[in-house]
Amino acid sequence: MLVVMHHGATNAEVDRVVRTIEELGYGARPMPGAQRTAIGLVGNDGRVDSSRIEALPGVAEVIHVSQPYKQVSREWKPESTIVELAPGVRVGGRDVVIIAGPCSVESEAQILEAARQVKAAGATALRGGAFKPRSSPYAFQGLGRKGLELLALARAETGLPVVTEAMDEEGARLVAEYADCIQIGARNMQNYSLLKAVGKLQRPVLLKRGMAATVTDLLMSAEYLLAEGNGQVILCERGVRSFDPAVRNMFDLTAIPLVHKLSHLPIVADPSHGTGARGQVTPMARAALAAGADGILVEVHPAPDQALSDGAQSLYPDQFAELVGELRPIAQAIGRALATSDGTFATAHV
Amino acid sequence: MLVVMHHGATNAEVDRVVRTIEELGYGARPMPGAQRTAIGLVGNDGRVDSSRIEALPGVAEVIHVSQPYKQVSREWKPESTIVELAPGVRVGGRDVVIIAGPCSVESEAQILEAARQVKAAGATALRGGAFKPRSSPYAFQGLGRKGLELLALARAETGLPVVTEAMDEEGARLVAEYADCIQIGARNMQNYSLLKAVGKLQRPVLLKRGMAATVTDLLMSAEYLLAEGNGQVILCERGVRSFDPAVRNMFDLTAIPLVHKLSHLPIVADPSHGTGARGQVTPMARAALAAGADGILVEVHPAPDQALSDGAQSLYPDQFAELVGELRPIAQAIGRALATSDGTFATAHV
Amino acid sequence: MLVVMHHGATNAEVDRVVRTIEELGYGARPMPGAQRTAIGLVGNDGRVDSSRIEALPGVAEVIHVSQPYKQVSREWKPESTIVELAPGVRVGGRDVVIIAGPCSVESEAQILEAARQVKAAGATALRGGAFKPRSSPYAFQGLGRKGLELLALARAETGLPVVTEAMDEEGARLVAEYADCIQIGARNMQNYSLLKAVGKLQRPVLLKRGMAATVTDLLMSAEYLLAEGNGQVILCERGVRSFDPAVRNMFDLTAIPLVHKLSHLPIVADPSHGTGARGQVTPMARAALAAGADGILVEVHPAPDQALSDGAQSLYPDQFAELVGELRPIAQAIGRALATSDGTFATAHV
Amino acid sequence: MLVVMHHGATNAEVDRVVRTIEELGYGARPMPGAQRTAIGLVGNDGRVDSSRIEALPGVAEVIHVSQPYKQVSREWKPESTIVELAPGVRVGGRDVVIIAGPCSVESEAQILEAARQVKAAGATALRGGAFKPRSSPYAFQGLGRKGLELLALARAETGLPVVTEAMDEEGARLVAEYADCIQIGARNMQNYSLLKAVGKLQRPVLLKRGMAATVTDLLMSAEYLLAEGNGQVILCERGVRSFDPAVRNMFDLTAIPLVHKLSHLPIVADPSHGTGARGQVTPMARAALAAGADGILVEVHPAPDQALSDGAQSLYPDQFAELVGELRPIAQAIGRALATSDGTFATAHV
Repeated sequence: MLVVMHHGATNAEVDRVVRTIEELGYGARPMPGAQRTAIGLVGNDGRVDSSRIEALPGVAEVIHVSQPYKQVSREWKPESTIVELAPGVRVGGRDVVIIAGPCSVESEAQILEAARQVKAAGATALRGGAFKPRSSPYAFQGLGRKGLELLALARAETGLPVVTEAMDEEGARLVAEYADCIQIGARNMQNYSLLKAVGKLQRPVLLKRGMAATVTDLLMSAEYLLAEGNGQVILCERGVRSFDPAVRNMFDLTAIPLVHKLSHLPIVADPSHGTGARGQVTPMARAALAAGADGILVEVHPAPDQALSDGAQSLYPDQFAELVGELRPIAQAIGRALATSDGTFATAHV
Repeated sequence: MLVVMHHGATNAEVDRVVRTIEELGYGARPMPGAQRTAIGLVGNDGRVDSSRIEALPGVAEVIHVSQPYKQVSREWKPESTIVELAPGVRVGGRDVVIIAGPCSVESEAQILEAARQVKAAGATALRGGAFKPRSSPYAFQGLGRKGLELLALARAETGLPVVTEAMDEEGARLVAEYADCIQIGARNMQNYSLLKAVGKLQRPVLLKRGMAATVTDLLMSAEYLLAEGNGQVILCERGVRSFDPAVRNMFDLTAIPLVHKLSHLPIVADPSHGTGARGQVTPMARAALAAGADGILVEVHPAPDQALSDGAQSLYPDQFAELVGELRPIAQAIGRALATSDGTFATAHV
Repeated sequence: MLVVMHHGATNAEVDRVVRTIEELGYGARPMPGAQRTAIGLVGNDGRVDSSRIEALPGVAEVIHVSQPYKQVSREWKPESTIVELAPGVRVGGRDVVIIAGPCSVESEAQILEAARQVKAAGATALRGGAFKPRSSPYAFQGLGRKGLELLALARAETGLPVVTEAMDEEGARLVAEYADCIQIGARNMQNYSLLKAVGKLQRPVLLKRGMAATVTDLLMSAEYLLAEGNGQVILCERGVRSFDPAVRNMFDLTAIPLVHKLSHLPIVADPSHGTGARGQVTPMARAALAAGADGILVEVHPAPDQALSDGAQSLYPDQFAELVGELRPIAQAIGRALATSDGTFATAHV
Repeated sequence: MLVVMHHGATNAEVDRVVRTIEELGYGARPMPGAQRTAIGLVGNDGRVDSSRIEALPGVAEVIHVSQPYKQVSREWKPESTIVELAPGVRVGGRDVVIIAGPCSVESEAQILEAARQVKAAGATALRGGAFKPRSSPYAFQGLGRKGLELLALARAETGLPVVTEAMDEEGARLVAEYADCIQIGARNMQNYSLLKAVGKLQRPVLLKRGMAATVTDLLMSAEYLLAEGNGQVILCERGVRSFDPAVRNMFDLTAIPLVHKLSHLPIVADPSHGTGARGQVTPMARAALAAGADGILVEVHPAPDQALSDGAQSLYPDQFAELVGELRPIAQAIGRALATSDGTFATAHV
């Protein structure tokens, strides 16, 4: 940590900063400069709360040299984490997973058909929402527990492990009961009560990046999960807010190599929310893979024009099959392969 | 709602859109244009889910003419809502409220001193966090229930009503028990489970704008509260994410006249989070008032350089007193006045 | 400047950074830390090009402690600069200027009427575009030289000094010939060829902030003008790009106290472009003044519904008169006053 | 175009909008709705200036159904444009071009070595700045005309066509004399005087997206070039401003399929500026190609740690060779190929 003093800071002000740092139990190293003095804090263990120092008179700025996260960082654990989404389905290794399915679970027929279609086309896991965060209180909010039961049915039928969202502590317990991986949505990325609750459950978590979250924010939210003892965390880039109304979100694929550099956790990408338009999903799924994503999360609906939510960004089943066909050679081109789902765990914990 | 077709859309595609609109129970009015055809949807009751239409072949874009919110809109209720924060303390009328206090409740001595100081300087209500959303799991997370007890004590002492944040359903019930107004923080603005739970409690709510929330998003989140039967909602502008690292947030004061135009709900402004730097708090509090804010939410700490959180943006008590002195003539200049706290409700519901 | 090394940087890598800093003629002060080593650069004169150091192996990041600008900074010149827009019309002192007029000069009748109206209502100077940067090549591009002649005529009639935009070197020479102050528009804020050319002309400059410019970027562009010997620079906040389609721009009023802290140059605010909607212009003009702006730049048109450009954000003349009436007591409330235009320089340099 | 009236708009206000539309020579079609009335404008030829209508009383909003651009749109010209960068070097067809070289031309030895190295590794064209837009007036501004002479020398040596930036009209004429393709930088994307001047020169243009430009803004700026008669325009995505300080820019690859959908012009991507960090250049170059980019623009320097500018984002020559090796199979995977430079035009127009 570096404390930068104002141009005209007095010696007394510099001394007070030095004393405060020492009171906090760290070393202080003043560096008088041509324009202004800076004071280095030595021995930072990542737990210094800079606000006391920022508040001191004469302080212009506090610059953090160390990252604020710890357990999620590659410095803490150099080798990449491989999350076992379900027995035999690993995320973060050589193989790239494809998690596909409808935005919402709408009915038994719909989810079973979707599951069979994405399985046939090569998906590794099934997605589908039972609890839906909708910006309007009057919009379809998901089938709830009934939706979870239908997802479990689809898993039993197809052998595809299930990823689905929880929006609160009670929902998280239900999801943990029925599904393989608990998704935390973008709007709840900084819902710390939910993060703590999910961190205590023994289930893999898929944590989506918030709409205005920096990569550091995303890693800090993951740190909440690891701090509770759950290290089975998959991050997910799904687009952030931008100034361009031409796209629903701005899909920030640079986050993928950046996360791989800063953290040992795997990261997947969601081109459906990342772009918001069916026509851009396929090229951006290819791009995400080429950027190094450990998996692709994609919305596929048996009949997008009948969908109760996100119809405009859902792929038709044959478009999805075509997409998988395009992803395979790209994976190969960068020394990876698409993961397969072998169904050997179909009798799992329901 | 207006459905815009692609340039080369066929008659069959146009017909299918018309049929789908009619199946949904609305009227369809095609408008062939020089460049492309558009189809107006007539009879929109604000509940049309456009995703089915967006998914149809030939559709380029769906444009929403009606706002997606309903009960929060000025069209629904033309006269301004006045929220009674506590008996005799009204937000949204002629008088402007000043809600002041420390970021976190740290100790009995600290919160009592802060309450007395802000009361003496002219505050209308007391703020202070018992449950603190912190980006790091290792940072001070607030005193919890103990903090609420101390806030209630400070209220009993000073007569100032209390505004404090809840982060989950259980916390909201506790806050409702001890405090006057439940704050929903920026990070939870789209935590719909929390919004639904708080909407069911009979307490005024202060809803902060999320870091990447549009004004429409903010109003949609308020709609969740009203949809549950709670119309006592105060909105709060507190800065949004921006590209300029020179400020912690970008304080979007234009949201104030915009909310007043679109909605009947009152809106206050938080220049402490809105700027993140003590030196900008005073001018921006003045600006918020001049822009028409119904109140100011501001962080004041008896000793900012000892604060456990947000020290750098907290005012010193004498700076706060000076600020109130500057706000008074500005309120007058625009035909308003600062609200006073008369303490007559000090025996309220603890 | 602080060079932060990667966690696993070798001693050889640290040594190479030290040597490179010394080769560049500065001192190097290594600070081994618990997590990583940082190296302070001592003696920074503001001209260190960090890219050579950033490119060295083992370097994680280079952090700039000194600001990249020099002559525009308050550390360089502590007392505020007062720009003389025209004889007797000063910007940056106690008095607040109001620069008003139509978006574009459209005809002799229009600009004369506008000038008389804004003068009568209390404006200090006249604005109006002769060269218009339009996003469409097919939109009205301004009257050019003819527009400048009409502005000069309006000045002769009313005594109001004239502020008008130049888009290239040739245009800047023409503007300098006919007008009092050369405006550089937001889209040209980083048109360095134009900045250099205008910096050489002996005329006050009004430099608008670019749509994605940080406050530092704005100051750096002003530095180009000062570096050419022209210190008569007025900065202008006019809104930046944001994610909220509800407003044309996000009006960043915090930039005003921030610029006053960092620089000695005056700063005015343009609520017309800052909001893009007539209904928000008045409250946000009040807010800008309360935030400490040294002036207000506002679009007023004799008949906004006949305007060739920006009609929706132009005030009607009576709205402008009302606005001036609201600004006066706010100026007073913060110890300032509205400047008056006395017309004594009406025979100036045409 | 659709004019949306306020909820309470009167019949007289609606009538006035209808009359104004008819006065402008178009048809008006009122659509009374449940919540509010909308009025369709029929016969829009893309030249309607909506500001007059926006300014009318009772108007809430004007929604543009037609795009504001014309000649750049795919509706205007359905088949993709192929720009001939130099004889035999085509951009926009099946083959993907790689334009590589240093940020700035620094010396004869440097540019010759860079040209030979990128040619050997498989580049199709040479980039290198002679005129450098730098945010600081004190930073290295490029060698100017001397830099252009050195680029011409490097072309004569290697046969690589040259792409280089012009910052003003005079510079553009010089660039047209010495180089094959005139680059307009991000900061000048809305410098309309420069666009008009370059549009008149008979040279291919590479137009970079501005830091806060929407895709529509980018296309509108290209429209300026086409409106002057120059249709040889290559667009370039190079990252936009974002809220995340972890990256220099946010690289918006979705712009690539979006531009291909909206326009017939080719688009290339610049991962060097798009990410700002050497470690992210290679994965994001792969991603850009997979997203459908017609070419990659990448900074390569013989010795990045000696570079006078952008050292931290320049690839080492062997990294560039490796990158080309990774791009080849990805191009193949999506049915494209890397373009080759055969040098047959080495005697061209110097």
